[in-house]
Amino acid sequence: MSLLVVGSVAIDSIQTPTASRERVLGGSATHFSYSASFFTAVRLVGVVGEDFPQEHIALLRGRNIDTSGLHVVPGGKTFFWKGKYQPNMNDRETLEVQLNVLGDVRPKLPESFRRTDFIFLGNDSPLNQRAVLDQITGPRLVVADTMDLWIREQHAELMALLKRIDGLVMNDSEAKLLTGDENLVAAGHKILKLGPRFVVIKKGEHGAMFFSEHETYVLPAYPTERVIDPTGAGDSFAGGLMGYLAAQGDFDPKTLKEAMAYGILVASFCVEDFSLDRLQQISRGDIDRRMEQYRKMLSF
Amino acid sequence: MSLLVVGSVAIDSIQTPTASRERVLGGSATHFSYSASFFTAVRLVGVVGEDFPQEHIALLRGRNIDTSGLHVVPGGKTFFWKGKYQPNMNDRETLEVQLNVLGDVRPKLPESFRRTDFIFLGNDSPLNQRAVLDQITGPRLVVADTMDLWIREQHAELMALLKRIDGLVMNDSEAKLLTGDENLVAAGHKILKLGPRFVVIKKGEHGAMFFSEHETYVLPAYPTERVIDPTGAGDSFAGGLMGYLAAQGDFDPKTLKEAMAYGILVASFCVEDFSLDRLQQISRGDIDRRMEQYRKMLSF
Repeated sequence: MSLLVVGSVAIDSIQTPTASRERVLGGSATHFSYSASFFTAVRLVGVVGEDFPQEHIALLRGRNIDTSGLHVVPGGKTFFWKGKYQPNMNDRETLEVQLNVLGDVRPKLPESFRRTDFIFLGNDSPLNQRAVLDQITGPRLVVADTMDLWIREQHAELMALLKRIDGLVMNDSEAKLLTGDENLVAAGHKILKLGPRFVVIKKGEHGAMFFSEHETYVLPAYPTERVIDPTGAGDSFAGGLMGYLAAQGDFDPKTLKEAMAYGILVASFCVEDFSLDRLQQISRGDIDRRMEQYRKMLSF
Repeated sequence: MSLLVVGSVAIDSIQTPTASRERVLGGSATHFSYSASFFTAVRLVGVVGEDFPQEHIALLRGRNIDTSGLHVVPGGKTFFWKGKYQPNMNDRETLEVQLNVLGDVRPKLPESFRRTDFIFLGNDSPLNQRAVLDQITGPRLVVADTMDLWIREQHAELMALLKRIDGLVMNDSEAKLLTGDENLVAAGHKILKLGPRFVVIKKGEHGAMFFSEHETYVLPAYPTERVIDPTGAGDSFAGGLMGYLAAQGDFDPKTLKEAMAYGILVASFCVEDFSLDRLQQISRGDIDRRMEQYRKMLSF
């Protein structure tokens, strides 16, 4: 079934304790769509400036990612983020942000995208996320990401959005902030009461938790020594998860759990190099081979 | 097969964000032996003062824990720890420590304990741990715990000990400190090179990792909303793990992985109340029922 992502497309400069890269391809919609494209075709909606390298667009198009929703602002500059990771490769410091074209556009969907079955609303203001939903006709599954900024500063708008989505994906610190509860199991259950039918809490190197009315579970991350750059891991996780769901065409509990595992595994490849570099080296077969090891790891 | 633990027996006063308890039964050997006793008989070696309540000894004896190695120092006072947990229930502050009888005794094993198959050296100075090993004849499996204090202040002694043990159990921050590596997978592999045939890194609410020459895996914690007091969870984990191994009488990779899971589940009960309160309410059947749910959670 069809899959749509609305999110950021960015240029990132990244420093880690051992290496750094200048002006590489980044952004939530970028990592999401590339990761989902291992499983299904993807429709991407985002905005970039005229400075955005054509080769990046070619890279996405070559992966069965429909970029007709990628709006290029004439004379505009692409969203830029510069960050630095601490030695634990988890905490990071933002050194510079240039919102540029991301600052003042409400996302607009091409006519051909308005009927899409599976929707992922990448991290954005709840008002922008709502504006996307208002342009969609009859979606089967809507999943959203959010962040601390919106939890703090657009709380009412976020609460309204939560009543309109099926699934919420967020990281552990955001779940604690949203609920005021330090216990993630309690936090997950509290968020369910705010509207979504399921909640996924990402725990970085510790995996991800799933909550629905009838199920609570946690799956660990795939243990890897090779963590080069964690940027985009969360979006890569969401891309793997939603890509698999859309490919299967359903979201029953069994499929959702498989999708959680695929999300975790695609993310485990994503962190093995900067930007999309590692994902460009692998195939669906590599993911499935890691899945076999992962299943084996979890059975006893 | 026979199982021996050498460790602390303590009186704890504990404050959590929601409750507190004064002078309850604590200590590494206490939590370890009670947890192991769901699976097998246990030999306990430790030291207490004359103030140590008889009812605590009766409680342990009632569980098939042989306390003939519990040395009562005439006129002495039992090791006392007072601590306070932060709202995240992970970080804790020590408010008061009275070493008392723990300060100046080398552990001494009763003659009848010297031939034991499975040995757990609870957290203690590497010199004391070595002194225990020197009293043991022909053990089949020796596993030790340690802590930041010994890593920092008795490094050479610890390095010597690592060459004499089969398995090392420690928590994530200690593994990072010992290796200087922030990546736990890398840290686990580095510790293997220091001597032990397997290494277990405990991650608290995030579960535990296992490393041997041929295997690396991580198992998540059992997700629970009811975290009342994390004190003793790590020792409870080790007790479940070693208790299951001793009951099975082997430590091949399959048994070790099952033992890891049992350790995780016994610890998940331990944190559901103060001291041994929750463990006193449950049976081996309750652990096995949770094991069924845990296995189900990890299969997809």
